[in-house]
Amino acid sequence: MSAAAETGRIEAFSDGVFAIAITLLILEIHVPRVGPGASLGAALLHAWPSYLAYALSFVTIGVMWMNHHRLFGLIRRGDDVLLALNLLLLLGVSFVPFPTAVLAEHLRGAGARTAALVYSGTFLVISFLFQGLWRYASGRRRLIGDGVAGVALRRIDRQYILGPIFYGIATVLAPFSASASVGVALALAVVFALPPSLFAPRA
Amino acid sequence: MSAAAETGRIEAFSDGVFAIAITLLILEIHVPRVGPGASLGAALLHAWPSYLAYALSFVTIGVMWMNHHRLFGLIRRGDDVLLALNLLLLLGVSFVPFPTAVLAEHLRGAGARTAALVYSGTFLVISFLFQGLWRYASGRRRLIGDGVAGVALRRIDRQYILGPIFYGIATVLAPFSASASVGVALALAVVFALPPSLFAPRA
Amino acid sequence: MSAAAETGRIEAFSDGVFAIAITLLILEIHVPRVGPGASLGAALLHAWPSYLAYALSFVTIGVMWMNHHRLFGLIRRGDDVLLALNLLLLLGVSFVPFPTAVLAEHLRGAGARTAALVYSGTFLVISFLFQGLWRYASGRRRLIGDGVAGVALRRIDRQYILGPIFYGIATVLAPFSASASVGVALALAVVFALPPSLFAPRA
Amino acid sequence: MSAAAETGRIEAFSDGVFAIAITLLILEIHVPRVGPGASLGAALLHAWPSYLAYALSFVTIGVMWMNHHRLFGLIRRGDDVLLALNLLLLLGVSFVPFPTAVLAEHLRGAGARTAALVYSGTFLVISFLFQGLWRYASGRRRLIGDGVAGVALRRIDRQYILGPIFYGIATVLAPFSASASVGVALALAVVFALPPSLFAPRA
Repeated sequence: MSAAAETGRIEAFSDGVFAIAITLLILEIHVPRVGPGASLGAALLHAWPSYLAYALSFVTIGVMWMNHHRLFGLIRRGDDVLLALNLLLLLGVSFVPFPTAVLAEHLRGAGARTAALVYSGTFLVISFLFQGLWRYASGRRRLIGDGVAGVALRRIDRQYILGPIFYGIATVLAPFSASASVGVALALAVVFALPPSLFAPRA
Repeated sequence: MSAAAETGRIEAFSDGVFAIAITLLILEIHVPRVGPGASLGAALLHAWPSYLAYALSFVTIGVMWMNHHRLFGLIRRGDDVLLALNLLLLLGVSFVPFPTAVLAEHLRGAGARTAALVYSGTFLVISFLFQGLWRYASGRRRLIGDGVAGVALRRIDRQYILGPIFYGIATVLAPFSASASVGVALALAVVFALPPSLFAPRA
Repeated sequence: MSAAAETGRIEAFSDGVFAIAITLLILEIHVPRVGPGASLGAALLHAWPSYLAYALSFVTIGVMWMNHHRLFGLIRRGDDVLLALNLLLLLGVSFVPFPTAVLAEHLRGAGARTAALVYSGTFLVISFLFQGLWRYASGRRRLIGDGVAGVALRRIDRQYILGPIFYGIATVLAPFSASASVGVALALAVVFALPPSLFAPRA
Repeated sequence: MSAAAETGRIEAFSDGVFAIAITLLILEIHVPRVGPGASLGAALLHAWPSYLAYALSFVTIGVMWMNHHRLFGLIRRGDDVLLALNLLLLLGVSFVPFPTAVLAEHLRGAGARTAALVYSGTFLVISFLFQGLWRYASGRRRLIGDGVAGVALRRIDRQYILGPIFYGIATVLAPFSASASVGVALALAVVFALPPSLFAPRA
């Protein structure tokens, strides 16, 4: 009983956490205080790092949700280790609103590179947690659905290498240039959110 | 596998985001500080723009949820583009608590027209994102359920024109009059929330 | 299509809103600031109105969720009016964290009776919205499940009278005594949360 | 009808509350204010009690969710008392973000032991609420699924004794040493999150 939890409720719980984390991001954008004589429009435009950080984290969590979704389309059975690894992954995903707020508040100013390091580093850790979850599940044939071909597992293996590599680059760049680090994270979010058929030689 | 995601989990995730965004709106209403000798009742009444903005955004998100619901009653299959367009739409919906807070705080005062512009503009953008999602899905016959008649698609086509037109009007009005802009958004919310049979020549 | 929405997704969306509203209540309790030399324990005890308001609103929303659950166990079909009435009810439920925070902050002090009035008044309005939803659904035989006996509808009719009566009393008492008003709301929450078999002549 | 609620919707609602409570924890970590000339990195490192409290509460709520999940895998029927006991349990779970914030803010300083007392005490109360729920359900054979062996019930009985004992120890330690109390809670979270097969004599 305790060894084999059906994946349905893990997915539903995970979906809930993803949906809440992605929607909580907006709470980190604060209405600007506007002094007398100052312009609300200028104050709102001035807050552009908040919108950038919001959109970037939103799309990134969205992409992570799609990946999680795809993974659990292949995983058919769960066990206690999978449950624990998934919980650890959700801990990382739920943490995202915090580095997002740090980035929004410090992207301009002396702390920019530290903020970019924390931001990219968070996604680097999450991409490792994804790796761990996937490697554990794909290495145990009985957790994978019977109809899943080995070639499909290989394809995911290859895709999942990309996250640690690119977020690793973004993290390494951060101490030198906050813009370069955030730029890589932005490029990653756009590329991953776009339909893969755009990049395939032919659909 | 990756090309055809079942719509059930997209809907469940979207429902989660809609439900959370609509419920988070209340966090933007703050308990008024009341100085010694001042009246709590007066302070609460003074905060009426918060209640107006809350109710208006609540009903508008509620109507958008119903529309999304109706759309996915017609859409039977999903693909990666649909997933990406839906994620973009959810990004817009999740953003609503921010312009709601801006409107609540600045509806009285020098920033009123800017606040109304941001508020109506947000819904204008969301109505375009709805258009995009619908046009993509309805233009691909294989994404639509087999039993859906062309006339039902045409009817949605006609209804979905209304959002951009009216939120366009509200946005254009904002630089001239905040009340007029918010008034249009209010009228739209009430009309869309009322059952359509009220407006039909006969039920 | 648009006239008959299946109730499953209305329930799921409503459940989401109830679950989020009930869980957001905790955000209204703030960690007390403690000056140097002052005791954290004393500060935490001093914040008792926050815990009272939290527990009271939590149990009351919980009871409302159970009622909603029971209602949609009888309602088998939805239409646009039901959808609109349900949205209005959810607007009321989502609003609860605000009067809860007002009560928590003003239960001691000059604004206590105003705070109690706002608090009890909110639940009075919600009990009317429940009435409206139920009267609409129960008055249209085709919305009710075929196996539901008229006597079951009558029983709900009788139970639903209690909400407006008792929250009406709590609201009327508020301008005279905040404690009396909150006391009635507290008694109601406890009585409604307890299993009905306790009050039945025999189980 | 009212006496026998299907457990599916209780589980879904409970899952929602667990998922929201676990994800709200991040809102208690605030972006540090950094004065001119000060380092953001140092300020972020200085906030370590926030990360510790976040991770500890996240894993603990996660473990409680798994337990709840397992429990409702055995419980097949619900009644009004179960509904009320479950609501009380959820009240405890939803409360967790508050003692988490208290611990994060006061783990260093004069209030540390009070904060640890409140923190461990909250989990002690929740473990009693779990006991109550389980004892009520397991004592009524008709609420338990037909295929569930008595030995499985006994095993849960034994496991559920551990929570009150260890959180009792953590609570009793708090007035003497905050670190010891939090250390016990931390050890508990790690042990419970690890797969039980690690501790079994043989898998």
